[in-house]
Amino acid sequence: MAAPQKTTLKEFESVFPKLEEVLLEHAKSYNLPEKELAWYKQSLEINAVGGKCNRGMSVPDSVSLLLGRPLTEDEYFKSATLGWMTELLQAFFLVSDDIMDSSITRRGKPCWYRQEGVGMVAINDAFMLEAAIYTLLKKYFRDHPRYVDLLELFHEVTFQTEMGQLCDLLTAPEDVVNLDNFSMEKYRFIVIYKTAYYSFYLPVALSLLLLDIATPANLKQAESILIPLGEYFQIQDDYLDNFGLPEHIGKIGTDIMDNKCSWLVNQALATVTPDQRKILEENYGRKDKAKEAVIKKLYDDLKLEQRYQDYEEKFVTEIRERIGQIDEAEGLKKSVFEAFLAKIYKRSK
Amino acid sequence: MAAPQKTTLKEFESVFPKLEEVLLEHAKSYNLPEKELAWYKQSLEINAVGGKCNRGMSVPDSVSLLLGRPLTEDEYFKSATLGWMTELLQAFFLVSDDIMDSSITRRGKPCWYRQEGVGMVAINDAFMLEAAIYTLLKKYFRDHPRYVDLLELFHEVTFQTEMGQLCDLLTAPEDVVNLDNFSMEKYRFIVIYKTAYYSFYLPVALSLLLLDIATPANLKQAESILIPLGEYFQIQDDYLDNFGLPEHIGKIGTDIMDNKCSWLVNQALATVTPDQRKILEENYGRKDKAKEAVIKKLYDDLKLEQRYQDYEEKFVTEIRERIGQIDEAEGLKKSVFEAFLAKIYKRSK
Ligand SMILES: [Mg+2]
Ligand SMILES: [Mg+2]
Ligand SMILES: [Mg+2]
Ligand SMILES: [Mg+2]
Ligand SMILES: [Mg+2]
Ligand SMILES: [Mg+2]
Repeated sequence: MAAPQKTTLKEFESVFPKLEEVLLEHAKSYNLPEKELAWYKQSLEINAVGGKCNRGMSVPDSVSLLLGRPLTEDEYFKSATLGWMTELLQAFFLVSDDIMDSSITRRGKPCWYRQEGVGMVAINDAFMLEAAIYTLLKKYFRDHPRYVDLLELFHEVTFQTEMGQLCDLLTAPEDVVNLDNFSMEKYRFIVIYKTAYYSFYLPVALSLLLLDIATPANLKQAESILIPLGEYFQIQDDYLDNFGLPEHIGKIGTDIMDNKCSWLVNQALATVTPDQRKILEENYGRKDKAKEAVIKKLYDDLKLEQRYQDYEEKFVTEIRERIGQIDEAEGLKKSVFEAFLAKIYKRSK
Repeated sequence: MAAPQKTTLKEFESVFPKLEEVLLEHAKSYNLPEKELAWYKQSLEINAVGGKCNRGMSVPDSVSLLLGRPLTEDEYFKSATLGWMTELLQAFFLVSDDIMDSSITRRGKPCWYRQEGVGMVAINDAFMLEAAIYTLLKKYFRDHPRYVDLLELFHEVTFQTEMGQLCDLLTAPEDVVNLDNFSMEKYRFIVIYKTAYYSFYLPVALSLLLLDIATPANLKQAESILIPLGEYFQIQDDYLDNFGLPEHIGKIGTDIMDNKCSWLVNQALATVTPDQRKILEENYGRKDKAKEAVIKKLYDDLKLEQRYQDYEEKFVTEIRERIGQIDEAEGLKKSVFEAFLAKIYKRSK
């Protein structure tokens, strides 16, 4: 049997034009006028395309690993289509999150809602990105034996992400600093719901459904590995925001000034002396470079870099063990999780 | 057989607490923290409850008419639950529409996004109102033979409404007055997609699906009556905005100052002389009472009140004829449409 094959961004992106055509034809079938059709096209191209597509590409990659061989053209198209749905779901979340966070840029360009003439229409554009998922599911998967499960999976993961987003918004509003809101428990809820389900669990659950091997046991095993992996991924993200090299991560971290409920501030809160707590209270979450520097110094005093290294080693040892114990009897493969871990272990960006 | 029974707002609202409990229990099952749970509860109660519930109540009413008898307790609960889903869909649209329109009040209270401490979190709250539809569908209709059709119907009508909203937003931005954007064709697209599908077609399609008599012929007949009825309803709304009595409609119309793509302005545009067109260009869509008065005078000069009366008589005659021709062989009933028409014919509010 030929070895599984990893997809490339180029290959994955080459599927999009066909999906875009289907989506635009669908809108046209309702006689959506020219101007609105062009707007929808623009929104799809700017918001769904242009990211790293790690989530999307992990669907064909996982399917190939599950089958233990390269995919046929049809298999690749189907799995990449499911991958693009995860990208559409992400686009729906990012377009709206940028409004809710008053963000300025996304992927090096102004956020969609800040682009010329867009404004709050972006809210409806976000809705239409979400709706595109169900248009594609109906078009390509209506006769799939797991169609209902695919629909319900998207509904569930969407709601999970919305709960995570709600908790994030209420825990760390950018303008009100209240460290009493933070805790590792809150942190875990936010990370797991806002990020881990849609970024890690969703692509693998989709792959299992596509191959009709999404047994309860397989889904449960996948969840038990992928949710912790998603948590680890976000902890890395928070770590790199402060300790990463800007030339690696491609931006200058702003979590401290943005009052983010980050792993680092939660680790700090768990170990500070009363005096250090006061320093945190007075300097965290302020749009002030000097106050940010005070926090960065505190993180160094608290040896958070070392604490992260210790966490990472411990976590990776444990998760490797868990992956080793995966039961492959119902068609799940350890290699799916090893691939996810390999992609993120000790990443610097 | 006992005559069908019309539901009351009180009866319909009495179903909501059970649905709310289900939605909150569902969120709790994911360990959504206390504060976020209370927030979700608040959003559900303020945004989904408190309207006239015409859309929602028309589901049990239609089901009772289709069955030709009062509903059993279980039938009432199931049909009112579907009715509440149309109210949740509307809540999702209204919460977000108010942000997109920078509206001030809704149902006599500040719009949700303008309430203390809410702001842009309202975008995510809108998402969660939409998600509630699918939570309830799964809870109560997973074993219904038409479950997939119910899901697809909500997806389709949601997307239709979003297309209507997009067209509305691009055609009549509040700040840029350009009457060249307007036309009766645009008007019809906006009205049909933004309002008619979810307000008129959806409740009846849900009723047909519930009773498993949603044959292609029945759906098509329903659509062919209900979409024109929805258009008529919106034309009335536009008419009343200018010619209705504030003490009847419960508000002072602002369509002229808000640059709305209203039936009246489109009728005006279709018949103005070049001089009158100039008056329109110079006075429509301005936040200025004197300019509004100029437009109101022009509407009188153009005899738009009479034009509306003529339209209404002609429309109602035609639609009655069409209702009379409904084929009831597959279980559809003329009385369903007669009830819709009776509720809106010559309404003054
Ligand atoms: Mg953000
Ligand atoms: Mg955010
Ligand atoms: Mg980050
Ligand atoms: Mg509005
Ligand atoms: Mg609007
Ligand atoms: Mg109106």
